[in-house]
Amino acid sequence: MVAEIITIGDEILIGQIIDTNSAWIATQLNGTGIRVKRMTSVSDDAMEIEEALVQAKTGSKIILITGGLGPTNDDITKKTLARYFNCTEMVLHKPTLEFIETRCAKRGIEMNELNRLQAEVPACCTVIPNCNGTAPGMWFEKEGIIYVSMPGVPAEMKTMMPEVLKRLQQKFTLPAIFHKTLLTYGIPESELALKIHEWENSLPEEMSPAYLPNIETGVKLRLSMMNAATDGDLLIEQQFNKLIPVLGDCIYGYEPETLESVVGKLLIRRHASVSTAESCTGGRIAHKITAVPGSSEYFKGGVVAYSNEMKINILGVNPDDIKKFGAVSPEIALQMAEGARKISNSDYAVATTGIAGPTGGTADKPVGLCWFGIATPNETKTFSRHFVMDRLGNIAAASSVALNELRLIMNYQLKIKNYE
Amino acid sequence: MVAEIITIGDEILIGQIIDTNSAWIATQLNGTGIRVKRMTSVSDDAMEIEEALVQAKTGSKIILITGGLGPTNDDITKKTLARYFNCTEMVLHKPTLEFIETRCAKRGIEMNELNRLQAEVPACCTVIPNCNGTAPGMWFEKEGIIYVSMPGVPAEMKTMMPEVLKRLQQKFTLPAIFHKTLLTYGIPESELALKIHEWENSLPEEMSPAYLPNIETGVKLRLSMMNAATDGDLLIEQQFNKLIPVLGDCIYGYEPETLESVVGKLLIRRHASVSTAESCTGGRIAHKITAVPGSSEYFKGGVVAYSNEMKINILGVNPDDIKKFGAVSPEIALQMAEGARKISNSDYAVATTGIAGPTGGTADKPVGLCWFGIATPNETKTFSRHFVMDRLGNIAAASSVALNELRLIMNYQLKIKNYE
Repeated sequence: MVAEIITIGDEILIGQIIDTNSAWIATQLNGTGIRVKRMTSVSDDAMEIEEALVQAKTGSKIILITGGLGPTNDDITKKTLARYFNCTEMVLHKPTLEFIETRCAKRGIEMNELNRLQAEVPACCTVIPNCNGTAPGMWFEKEGIIYVSMPGVPAEMKTMMPEVLKRLQQKFTLPAIFHKTLLTYGIPESELALKIHEWENSLPEEMSPAYLPNIETGVKLRLSMMNAATDGDLLIEQQFNKLIPVLGDCIYGYEPETLESVVGKLLIRRHASVSTAESCTGGRIAHKITAVPGSSEYFKGGVVAYSNEMKINILGVNPDDIKKFGAVSPEIALQMAEGARKISNSDYAVATTGIAGPTGGTADKPVGLCWFGIATPNETKTFSRHFVMDRLGNIAAASSVALNELRLIMNYQLKIKNYE
Repeated sequence: MVAEIITIGDEILIGQIIDTNSAWIATQLNGTGIRVKRMTSVSDDAMEIEEALVQAKTGSKIILITGGLGPTNDDITKKTLARYFNCTEMVLHKPTLEFIETRCAKRGIEMNELNRLQAEVPACCTVIPNCNGTAPGMWFEKEGIIYVSMPGVPAEMKTMMPEVLKRLQQKFTLPAIFHKTLLTYGIPESELALKIHEWENSLPEEMSPAYLPNIETGVKLRLSMMNAATDGDLLIEQQFNKLIPVLGDCIYGYEPETLESVVGKLLIRRHASVSTAESCTGGRIAHKITAVPGSSEYFKGGVVAYSNEMKINILGVNPDDIKKFGAVSPEIALQMAEGARKISNSDYAVATTGIAGPTGGTADKPVGLCWFGIATPNETKTFSRHFVMDRLGNIAAASSVALNELRLIMNYQLKIKNYE
């Protein structure tokens, strides 16, 4: 069974917002055994919407649409669909109206005319309730093809998808699609490809691999298996297991793990805690660590020591050393890590000091240079990297390098401990 | 002139990665007077790629393609294009080969066979150089239509676009497209729409408005003007100026400003500095502030005080008050803000303490509750909000509320100062 996803909105076509709905819907469909054949974005224009619908129905039995359902005049999806289905009679959907009324009352605001109009839908559709907003979802069937229209606001669309998936499962007999993605860090894509060339050639025909390089996550390696039996997950994992001796420590897990979630698990396993001392990464490492639910169990906290004053007063960095070596130096990275470990009373600490850019570099210390410090119960390590991206890219890459180094150190110590 | 953007990659269709290239390319094309009619994503499958090309050429003179040019076997765009253009003769592009050789040498790695093959291109194309990677871009012309194939890695695609735009400008006579986006925070979309209803109806016909609600940025209001004269920017701004008396402080600027860049500008104007004390937002506010180039001028630093220990030892929060009121309370938010202001020696400080979720809530203090503290040279303010999203949504929303409050306080103080 194949589906097409259509997102509607001028803001997408002019590049003002990035369409994140299609990717999220695709993961949901895949999990239900529905392959996405194509994603299309068109503007808030009746002709372009209709053209996309006509083209989509030639290849797909399921067409999921988001966007263009807002209360304002620029949103025309509802009108356009009504015309497309020759069903211009609009009816008031009472449960939706009551929901909007209650919602407004709870917030202490008066329901306005624009909100009331949102409760009107074409007579030929079935309403999919929206628990997170005022625009109802609409389910249409015509000539054996399912069309579902949902709001473009991600939180509203997401609240409808369980009901949509349930209805699709009732409508069609769906096979299983399996995807599993191995995560690697610290090895370039083409080097990885050459290293695992033999393995790739030896894969069973029904499995297809894909490489996904990314600055923050490293190269991801995905295996997909269509129409597989129920043990597809296990079969894929057996293939990936063959890569452990080839790639060693470069492997850090399977999706949806992340460097920060793996670091969290290693810390929990060691009953240990961590803290951060960030200069150039400006809080991004702390943000990544704390994005993981339950991170309060092992994250003590951090200092974003942007000024030298903060480095000296809070982290206890030696002011003479800043004068002597500069703030971007191995000496300061080391003292920052040790300072964070001490003041937070944590077992581990990670520190960054560098030049994120776009300005501030010198011949000696160019934009993109970053010194790292990793303090552990036994020793403190320092090393540098030179990144060549823009400010946000350099910040993101430095944050990942720091987390990966922490992972490697703990991994190593875990292995040592296993031998003791 | 209209264009279509096609992105190729199984990873997009299964929802593993979000296509950010299309939005970026669209902004570039718009700036050059080219409207994007449609964006399409298809998988690494020759038939689906060809189908997308055939459909695209019926509506667009310019077709920009990204993805599927990697060195590994799953990437088939080059082969597919060669067949589509009936041009299967591959030639070695010497400058690309030399570039790859030099690049490998610089990094101290040996050029491998997969890298060498990337320097081969169909004989009928013109190469667009890639300064950031090993896959060259390819420019094809057929039946009056331009096709450009670029790598899917954003940094590599972005390095090619200036050359692509230059060539498109040489090829076509292009009109001007203007977009300008007003930024608002603190007013819901439908309320905004009603408030500016009259203004919207009084807009000149050639201008079209659009509403873009977003948790982090607030509701953005865009005006677009197609085929405008060179003063389109000014004409749009004149319309937006009429909204200042209607929306007041809810307006915080035009894109590409952000809450954090506006806060930065207000600080610079006041010759003032800021610091952060974050619990539930875990470093995200500091990360947002430091994502702005030049933020070291006004950002002293921050503390991510995840543990009570850090709140007490670093920020000087009273441990008895934590026992008495709980860490999530107005008293602690206030002490955190004042502590951050004191230890960083900054003029302003912003603090958050709350329950980001998904667990940790109680009847009294539910998941999503967040207390804020804003310390200024004159006073410290505290207030709360209750967010109802997931962990990352709550963290993002709380960060924006904090930054917006800081903006409003400084705005207010600026006005007061103007009267003094």
